[in-house]
Amino acid sequence: MGSVITLTTDFGLADAYVGVMKGVILRINPEADIVDICHTIPPQDIRQAAFILNAAFPYYPYHTVHLIVVDPGVGTDRRLVILKTPRAYFVAPDNGVLSYVLEQHSTSSIPDSRRVTVGEDIKAYAITRSEYWLKPVSNTFHGRDILAPVAARLSLGMPAHSLGDNIDTLTAFPIPHPYRRDEAVIGHILHIDHFGNLITNIKPDVLSSAGQSVTIMVGNYTIRGMVNHYAEGEGLVALFGSLGYLEISRPNGNASAFLNSRVGDEIKILING
Amino acid sequence: MGSVITLTTDFGLADAYVGVMKGVILRINPEADIVDICHTIPPQDIRQAAFILNAAFPYYPYHTVHLIVVDPGVGTDRRLVILKTPRAYFVAPDNGVLSYVLEQHSTSSIPDSRRVTVGEDIKAYAITRSEYWLKPVSNTFHGRDILAPVAARLSLGMPAHSLGDNIDTLTAFPIPHPYRRDEAVIGHILHIDHFGNLITNIKPDVLSSAGQSVTIMVGNYTIRGMVNHYAEGEGLVALFGSLGYLEISRPNGNASAFLNSRVGDEIKILING
Amino acid sequence: MGSVITLTTDFGLADAYVGVMKGVILRINPEADIVDICHTIPPQDIRQAAFILNAAFPYYPYHTVHLIVVDPGVGTDRRLVILKTPRAYFVAPDNGVLSYVLEQHSTSSIPDSRRVTVGEDIKAYAITRSEYWLKPVSNTFHGRDILAPVAARLSLGMPAHSLGDNIDTLTAFPIPHPYRRDEAVIGHILHIDHFGNLITNIKPDVLSSAGQSVTIMVGNYTIRGMVNHYAEGEGLVALFGSLGYLEISRPNGNASAFLNSRVGDEIKILING
Repeated sequence: MGSVITLTTDFGLADAYVGVMKGVILRINPEADIVDICHTIPPQDIRQAAFILNAAFPYYPYHTVHLIVVDPGVGTDRRLVILKTPRAYFVAPDNGVLSYVLEQHSTSSIPDSRRVTVGEDIKAYAITRSEYWLKPVSNTFHGRDILAPVAARLSLGMPAHSLGDNIDTLTAFPIPHPYRRDEAVIGHILHIDHFGNLITNIKPDVLSSAGQSVTIMVGNYTIRGMVNHYAEGEGLVALFGSLGYLEISRPNGNASAFLNSRVGDEIKILING
Repeated sequence: MGSVITLTTDFGLADAYVGVMKGVILRINPEADIVDICHTIPPQDIRQAAFILNAAFPYYPYHTVHLIVVDPGVGTDRRLVILKTPRAYFVAPDNGVLSYVLEQHSTSSIPDSRRVTVGEDIKAYAITRSEYWLKPVSNTFHGRDILAPVAARLSLGMPAHSLGDNIDTLTAFPIPHPYRRDEAVIGHILHIDHFGNLITNIKPDVLSSAGQSVTIMVGNYTIRGMVNHYAEGEGLVALFGSLGYLEISRPNGNASAFLNSRVGDEIKILING
Repeated sequence: MGSVITLTTDFGLADAYVGVMKGVILRINPEADIVDICHTIPPQDIRQAAFILNAAFPYYPYHTVHLIVVDPGVGTDRRLVILKTPRAYFVAPDNGVLSYVLEQHSTSSIPDSRRVTVGEDIKAYAITRSEYWLKPVSNTFHGRDILAPVAARLSLGMPAHSLGDNIDTLTAFPIPHPYRRDEAVIGHILHIDHFGNLITNIKPDVLSSAGQSVTIMVGNYTIRGMVNHYAEGEGLVALFGSLGYLEISRPNGNASAFLNSRVGDEIKILING
């Protein structure tokens, strides 16, 4: 099929920008099944867009085209790219929004250079074939003029190599990984969701030797042990959430508001077992 | 042809949760026509979700699958259920979100026991057949792992009895009904909409003997008589709105902000006629 | 094809109203491809709706049906209309939301009379054929009871003249055009977008003799010269945006918040060249 196109943008819901891109797609592929992932990424917040995309794309059908438009560099010489993995196509500015996707296809963490060499199972293309773009191309809305037409053509089955030139590296930002400091594991908050849950970068394998015998320190609070779901426990609780990460939650409340937390804040875990 | 699936959730618009559920559905039924009813239900507000669902579902094609994920008890032993009526399928936690739907198919009001016996024309199923779920099932996102796959399979025509076990009762909350107190009819605000209109539980039959000769007391204000549409009258007006209920509105303004009203507030009606 | 129906409303995202209209459409045309343009038009803001619609509709496939429900006069004797252009159908209250569309098909500016005579290439119809409406018709939600069914039937190929009566004039509001005052060009802010960009009514032809040698005065600030994209320059910058209008922007910031601007505010341009 390959006719699903998802949209992730920072365009908000009050303007015509999203509607414009959908129109452009439907003119090129009237059969496209356009699905909104998120349009309320904070303006120009590449890290948030990367996180949201990473949470959603694994659940989509094979060959889905994921179109991401969070593009603070629009009009500059930053590249627009297609990333092709065994599972999906990604069409985006080359500014780091694909960092999580790239990490899944790398053998090592993303280096400080912030340039990732594309692996064997994936291919990347700089979007260069202007005959497939809307004309005239504006300097301020490449989502409409370049990315949407390219996504629509991929969804029609046009091969990526017809739309651009093969490239070897893509831009990524370093994704924070948990590390040991003395007797503790140090993690960070990757995302705060709508319910106020703090989603950290800590996966179960980090705590595998600990069972449930952990002590978690976040802000000025200490959480002893973990629970299994949001409705269990009182005050602040810790659990492994649906994305596979350790989350801090407040049953019937909002952990983020309670703790005044921010993305990037440190979480400290003592393994007692 | 039964391929419409509607979504009503408290997931908000800033996370990937809704996008994830759409991906899950499209992988199982690529032809599903997924329609958003509302994703801004206040977190865990089962009554609001029940009201919104009730306002929308009667307008959908026969055999539409309505998927509702407002699920404060996710991970506990609360049941997940399918409700099949002559008109539609409902897939939801068994926590009261189907109260209005159930009331339409009951011969009496919902009793205090909060357990409704399913009527003759409808059937209910506890979702139990785990071979149709996403694996592994998380403890925190049954919307993704259980409800979305079940809704997708119903939309493909799989019978409900293949997805769970027939059950006799469902959970409901008592829906407030207007009642008489001395010479007045006492109603309550069920919902406050985006325009600030106060939607009460009072239907025309309650006032049938009154014609337009009513006096309505809300907060510290008195409204004499009723109007026919929002643009008529000044100050505060009362009219029967599109849902069939008596509404309090403020022409070119916001009645809720003006009155500082809340869902549940009392409305008193004196019938003069 | 003609099966795309777009929606532009002031219904917000917290109620069932949008979901209800989609249900009504899908019952009449199960194959309709319903696309949201915007549902967060400020309540009853006809000018904003007109601007958003104008920004989006040119990008849609031919024969798309654009349904607009911003309708402060619902229930009064304001007309509901169909506008048919060579490119699309518009279904809306006759209250000015089609002003920009109409201007594109007029040979002169919209006169003060606020009544536009329909041009040769377009046709207008008052929606009168009640046999195609939902019954009973409420006094408060004609979007559901009249406009949605009419849009659905147009998308099925029913001719507009079967749904209403040919009319010669439509309501429009005067769209502000730039004008000369002494040595300056005076423009106005038409729209402020989600990023805080101020979108004015000034098109490149107004400045054609000036090249980049312009001085722009907005609020208490002066901008010298223009840039090509949002990431260029510092402080406040001016550029021609994706809609073809001169925009005032603040790189990595929010021009509207910085200037405390409002729609309708004046912009003054001195052409130095």
